[in-house]
Amino acid sequence: MSVKKIMVINGPNLNLLGQREPGLYGSQTLAELNASLKVSGERLGLELEFVQAHCEGKIIESLHRVGEELDGAILNAGGYTHTSVSIRDAVLSINKPVVEVHLTNPAARESFRQVSLLTGAAVGVVAGFGARSYELALYWFSLN
Amino acid sequence: MSVKKIMVINGPNLNLLGQREPGLYGSQTLAELNASLKVSGERLGLELEFVQAHCEGKIIESLHRVGEELDGAILNAGGYTHTSVSIRDAVLSINKPVVEVHLTNPAARESFRQVSLLTGAAVGVVAGFGARSYELALYWFSLN
Amino acid sequence: MSVKKIMVINGPNLNLLGQREPGLYGSQTLAELNASLKVSGERLGLELEFVQAHCEGKIIESLHRVGEELDGAILNAGGYTHTSVSIRDAVLSINKPVVEVHLTNPAARESFRQVSLLTGAAVGVVAGFGARSYELALYWFSLN
Amino acid sequence: MSVKKIMVINGPNLNLLGQREPGLYGSQTLAELNASLKVSGERLGLELEFVQAHCEGKIIESLHRVGEELDGAILNAGGYTHTSVSIRDAVLSINKPVVEVHLTNPAARESFRQVSLLTGAAVGVVAGFGARSYELALYWFSLN
Amino acid sequence: MSVKKIMVINGPNLNLLGQREPGLYGSQTLAELNASLKVSGERLGLELEFVQAHCEGKIIESLHRVGEELDGAILNAGGYTHTSVSIRDAVLSINKPVVEVHLTNPAARESFRQVSLLTGAAVGVVAGFGARSYELALYWFSLN
Amino acid sequence: MSVKKIMVINGPNLNLLGQREPGLYGSQTLAELNASLKVSGERLGLELEFVQAHCEGKIIESLHRVGEELDGAILNAGGYTHTSVSIRDAVLSINKPVVEVHLTNPAARESFRQVSLLTGAAVGVVAGFGARSYELALYWFSLN
Amino acid sequence: MSVKKIMVINGPNLNLLGQREPGLYGSQTLAELNASLKVSGERLGLELEFVQAHCEGKIIESLHRVGEELDGAILNAGGYTHTSVSIRDAVLSINKPVVEVHLTNPAARESFRQVSLLTGAAVGVVAGFGARSYELALYWFSLN
Amino acid sequence: MSVKKIMVINGPNLNLLGQREPGLYGSQTLAELNASLKVSGERLGLELEFVQAHCEGKIIESLHRVGEELDGAILNAGGYTHTSVSIRDAVLSINKPVVEVHLTNPAARESFRQVSLLTGAAVGVVAGFGARSYELALYWFSLN
Amino acid sequence: MSVKKIMVINGPNLNLLGQREPGLYGSQTLAELNASLKVSGERLGLELEFVQAHCEGKIIESLHRVGEELDGAILNAGGYTHTSVSIRDAVLSINKPVVEVHLTNPAARESFRQVSLLTGAAVGVVAGFGARSYELALYWFSLN
Amino acid sequence: MSVKKIMVINGPNLNLLGQREPGLYGSQTLAELNASLKVSGERLGLELEFVQAHCEGKIIESLHRVGEELDGAILNAGGYTHTSVSIRDAVLSINKPVVEVHLTNPAARESFRQVSLLTGAAVGVVAGFGARSYELALYWFSLN
Amino acid sequence: MSVKKIMVINGPNLNLLGQREPGLYGSQTLAELNASLKVSGERLGLELEFVQAHCEGKIIESLHRVGEELDGAILNAGGYTHTSVSIRDAVLSINKPVVEVHLTNPAARESFRQVSLLTGAAVGVVAGFGARSYELALYWFSLN
Amino acid sequence: MSVKKIMVINGPNLNLLGQREPGLYGSQTLAELNASLKVSGERLGLELEFVQAHCEGKIIESLHRVGEELDGAILNAGGYTHTSVSIRDAVLSINKPVVEVHLTNPAARESFRQVSLLTGAAVGVVAGFGARSYELALYWFSLN
Repeated sequence: MSVKKIMVINGPNLNLLGQREPGLYGSQTLAELNASLKVSGERLGLELEFVQAHCEGKIIESLHRVGEELDGAILNAGGYTHTSVSIRDAVLSINKPVVEVHLTNPAARESFRQVSLLTGAAVGVVAGFGARSYELALYWFSLN
Repeated sequence: MSVKKIMVINGPNLNLLGQREPGLYGSQTLAELNASLKVSGERLGLELEFVQAHCEGKIIESLHRVGEELDGAILNAGGYTHTSVSIRDAVLSINKPVVEVHLTNPAARESFRQVSLLTGAAVGVVAGFGARSYELALYWFSLN
Repeated sequence: MSVKKIMVINGPNLNLLGQREPGLYGSQTLAELNASLKVSGERLGLELEFVQAHCEGKIIESLHRVGEELDGAILNAGGYTHTSVSIRDAVLSINKPVVEVHLTNPAARESFRQVSLLTGAAVGVVAGFGARSYELALYWFSLN
Repeated sequence: MSVKKIMVINGPNLNLLGQREPGLYGSQTLAELNASLKVSGERLGLELEFVQAHCEGKIIESLHRVGEELDGAILNAGGYTHTSVSIRDAVLSINKPVVEVHLTNPAARESFRQVSLLTGAAVGVVAGFGARSYELALYWFSLN
Repeated sequence: MSVKKIMVINGPNLNLLGQREPGLYGSQTLAELNASLKVSGERLGLELEFVQAHCEGKIIESLHRVGEELDGAILNAGGYTHTSVSIRDAVLSINKPVVEVHLTNPAARESFRQVSLLTGAAVGVVAGFGARSYELALYWFSLN
Repeated sequence: MSVKKIMVINGPNLNLLGQREPGLYGSQTLAELNASLKVSGERLGLELEFVQAHCEGKIIESLHRVGEELDGAILNAGGYTHTSVSIRDAVLSINKPVVEVHLTNPAARESFRQVSLLTGAAVGVVAGFGARSYELALYWFSLN
Repeated sequence: MSVKKIMVINGPNLNLLGQREPGLYGSQTLAELNASLKVSGERLGLELEFVQAHCEGKIIESLHRVGEELDGAILNAGGYTHTSVSIRDAVLSINKPVVEVHLTNPAARESFRQVSLLTGAAVGVVAGFGARSYELALYWFSLN
Repeated sequence: MSVKKIMVINGPNLNLLGQREPGLYGSQTLAELNASLKVSGERLGLELEFVQAHCEGKIIESLHRVGEELDGAILNAGGYTHTSVSIRDAVLSINKPVVEVHLTNPAARESFRQVSLLTGAAVGVVAGFGARSYELALYWFSLN
Repeated sequence: MSVKKIMVINGPNLNLLGQREPGLYGSQTLAELNASLKVSGERLGLELEFVQAHCEGKIIESLHRVGEELDGAILNAGGYTHTSVSIRDAVLSINKPVVEVHLTNPAARESFRQVSLLTGAAVGVVAGFGARSYELALYWFSLN
Repeated sequence: MSVKKIMVINGPNLNLLGQREPGLYGSQTLAELNASLKVSGERLGLELEFVQAHCEGKIIESLHRVGEELDGAILNAGGYTHTSVSIRDAVLSINKPVVEVHLTNPAARESFRQVSLLTGAAVGVVAGFGARSYELALYWFSLN
Repeated sequence: MSVKKIMVINGPNLNLLGQREPGLYGSQTLAELNASLKVSGERLGLELEFVQAHCEGKIIESLHRVGEELDGAILNAGGYTHTSVSIRDAVLSINKPVVEVHLTNPAARESFRQVSLLTGAAVGVVAGFGARSYELALYWFSLN
Repeated sequence: MSVKKIMVINGPNLNLLGQREPGLYGSQTLAELNASLKVSGERLGLELEFVQAHCEGKIIESLHRVGEELDGAILNAGGYTHTSVSIRDAVLSINKPVVEVHLTNPAARESFRQVSLLTGAAVGVVAGFGARSYELALYWFSLN
């Protein structure tokens, strides 16, 4: 079985992981998270590629590249989760599975975080487990 | 490390798995699903106990027993996900992690399935991956 | 033509028929109603079985038994009409017609009685004719 | 016992029955439906009179005539069910029972079909049984 | 000062005044009401013309005629008050004052009677005084 | 027939009539309006008493005095029309007719002016005719 | 290629075009508009037939005739656009394309004009271009 | 004066009192609460009977038994307060007073706890005083 | 133990108790109610002081005085219950317990009476028991 | 340049500043705040006059006096900010600038504090800076 | 007559036309669509310039350039149609006509596509005709 | 005391200040506004840096730089104020004060401008004073 290529896409502000409201998001930086996911990915037979972008347009471009060259994506769209019809359209436009992940449980936070425009387009959602949310998404790709 | 004991609780109508709207829920029966989870659990160092109940009160009792004797629960509360304040209170009343799972992605279905009273109380949610949703929840318990 | 077997399911509080707010629900008891329906059923070639339950789970079990052994059900789910996603799912889970009935016309009562979670799942609804609502439902089974 | 006179009123677009979205409304024409109801009516001791009108005002006039000369009405107000306060007022203005019928189950269709202004004014409602909805309404008149 | 010509327009079901829910609308018939208004009108220097119509289109036509030939209108649009954008447009299309009247006080009735599409277009509204509502409207025309 | 005593109550900011937004409310001052109403009242056999108050409590006291000593009231509650449950209760607490009046047509203004808590309690409402709204209210008292 | 027959249907109050709020709707009369469309139609190979009706029922009848004898319709339903489920049903009942047009842009006007019950049923919508909206609709028929 | 018999009904999760979120609900167990109420009841001339149930159906049955054999009930329906139309119906079905109690003040908690379906059916409500809420309810029974 | 001083504050229109809608509020006057509470208070070791005010500002002042000189308050804010953020703030501003009381059960009345701005600020609420609501509040102070 | 006269109006409960929820509003009393503003005002060429009132009517009167004799007002209407149409009308009735201020940021508090009826009428709003909100408002008057 | 210069602006994801959900959007690519529009434009005397951008900022820049150098724009803003106040402001900031177009009929799709922030700012809207929507917009420019 | 460094960030379309709807936003250009603020800043001991961006991503980047190198920001996010959860998150991610400013008073404009996602995250808000809003924000930084 060939190695699957998965893009891990993190949206706006996630570059500040570890600094930003650590009580809420934990003290691990994005670099540390990615390094740790890379190890898990290798163990599970997945080759990961990492993107972080503040710009809606760049996330859309990354998803398009997944559609053309990779096997799937793990997407934490940050604040765009709740406002971007365009990213939703991008997910629907490609024929690769996209798993929606969240560090925290949006349902336990502000009301404007409780609507996800992505959920209906993603293959599934994993939320609330901190960095483990990404691990579970990787595990799903390894099972398929 | 000792083996963790996890209760897998399935709510109303899930006994009909495999027969009920197979286009939506798949053709695997609940017995087959449980057997398959049991194997996965053993591989991951988890001892599983299975409960299926139509009755709100019985699910609450099962959760109370998790609070007293087990290490956590995987809960697919079926239709009660959207209507039961009492099951939410039960999850909050015990000091053990409860992972909310769904076979399908509620966000892609009827509007009354888009409100989950449980989500805010559960440690996290995994939805939309079919039987794999349970596998990801097991995997989470194995990581903690 | 063989006799059809139909279950008449009455939900919570309907055991108090005749005593409970008689100005609203009439003075006939549930036993008298069932006796009278039994006679009508015989005349129309239907064999009736009667269930009354306060418990959501028990109504679900009864519907499952209809799915396995009977030809259909007449369901007055009482207060659960407006709150139970799980009974709705049970109706959708079985391949037998279920006719929703109401003694009174919920649309002429409190606003929380104006939403029916069952209506979309039932084959049809008959409401507002008092005990006659059940008679019309029996008549429908006799025509099919 | 004298024969009861009942008016069967069909609202806008119901003249196209059989042609209009047959997957939804069946292939029977309005003439065929009326002929078949006439036969059922005779068997049940009811004399039927048929009206079909696109115009809100004409339906109101027909209801007024029911108030003066007939014994009741079966009313499928089509699209006016959801928008006409005036037809509701007409039903309330006469002292004869009016049974609301629908071919399909409005609760399983678009949201603007889920509010019925008529239901609170009618003696009862029968919905979702196709042409059989009218048969059940006739049966009710025969029982009273 | 020349005599003013005023049209008194009554909408659907108002022909049944005196018979229809007399506890709510009083026992005076429309003919009696009109006769009494005619006398009041003469005393106040107003010549009245009476229209009663069930049909939205006919009320619109009458308003257009007011725009061309009369000096104003008193309009009780009945159930159309709450649903007709078209009658509102007709009131705005003519350059004559239209006074909205109601026998009862819609604000003390069902919620769907509490929205008036006409009020914003009429010169003023008089409601809740029974037949006296029309008298006050006549009085207004006599003052202008 | 004895002379009727009517209190004309004007709520907050109405002392500024004539100065405040004259394009909306006209250039007549409250003193001029009251003088003109006094003349009309005499002609119609009504003795008027005038109150203007900014304070919710004072309007309530005035209404209580109407209940004990006068024959009715004409009430323009200004901004309290839309917010005061207490003034509504005061109107309901006394056994004298209260007519609600407005200079402008609230339905043609800001949305928070479109809910009137008073309307359901008043005997009737007259709105939109400027100072003439008070004249029509006086006329109603003269007719009763 | 044979000439296409298109019905241009104008709803309530549009007979007053040119007189009614000219600042909003322009100074061209309906007769002038129709004459000008007739010329454009001929140039584009379309034979036009014109209907103007205040009555909901009559618009429904005209649409039925389009279904039987013509090739399509251009429909400006005026105030019915926002309130008529029955006209929507008529558009869905026939197998001919109906283009919804508006002189003004309803989205820039009162909120009750921002809901269109027709839009979902029409083949497309053209709004805000004044009389040009009809021209664009004609152009669409010439392209098909 | 004979001793009154009162049932004290506690709904789902209240068996965990003292363990469950003690910061919110206090450290007294249900057994301790009941013992203390028993003493207060005796002092006030009331004989108490205690029920605790997770199941909606069982609470309904208990209320029915109150209707047949006891003099009233004190009901803390826990999470069902906000979701159960059926318990509301049970309260309305019996002719004995039911006092609704809450340990905490639901109005100061999550929004889904701010709607009580029971309040309209109960003779009164006492909320927010902790265990004292039950004491006040007992006191009420002693006064009647 | 020293005697506790409690202020009993009644809001607008409560001076009319006994006259005002006696079917709803009973025939006891405020003076009689206060006299009867005074006796109960003495028996329970409480010294009562009575305030009745129509004016929001005066109720706020009274609450401030409670904060400085008394031991608590029983507050029936009448119509202000549903509209006054300022009284709510006053309750929160003082460090003395305030018990909210109502004669009737607001939840069984008009919708604008179903929101209480006070409930979240008060120590607890007692509603629906008529004059007994005040007795229960007194009893609570005697227990603390 | 002559000195400008500005009224600083504080609404209900603001007399308790320093005592009331100091964690939220700071420990400075109203007297200290006013003294400090007086100094700042002098430095900026403004003469200040201070009003504190619990009563809606008194705030309206103060605004009217600003309209007649002063150059502007700084208004912290406390709880009335969210409920008073009458104060809004008073601000609109005078021709002097009124700056709305808040100590805290209402948008970060309870939802009923997130609607301001005043904001649309005031010349501008300054919120969230504690006592500094008043300083910024003074600074604005000094710039104009 | 000089040639008009029109910019055709396509928003996010429209570069994938032909690949993305062809059942919904057709199989024509953006390049093919543009080529075909170019031909139509030439026939109608219009010179077209094509922009496609994922980034809100870039669409705004393009609109600004239209304001400075071109004669108008045809704008399909994709997902930004429903969320971008900034693009709306850009349309209002320039003095050139912008026609809003959509391939599909948003009113027949998900609810979050039914609000258009652009419609009120555009000169008109053409929706639902597939690629023909652009043709109609071109035709409008040719007529002006 | 060292000089504070403050970034003044202007969002989309604000580069058009002076040209864009001057009746609303004034005739001063952004360059002129910035020059004038620079002078004020120097007088107040503040060193200003200016950014203008159409792109959501660029504003986020600028805020991140404030977090690393400057002492605070004044942010007029233009249209993003009402839609950007991502910018809100950026404000929360940095430990420097951000003051929200608006030229106009959003509360007096279209309803979609009345929700600010930023307000809850900013230290305070100043709105409605035109260019003076920025001056007041500068003044705040000089006081702290």
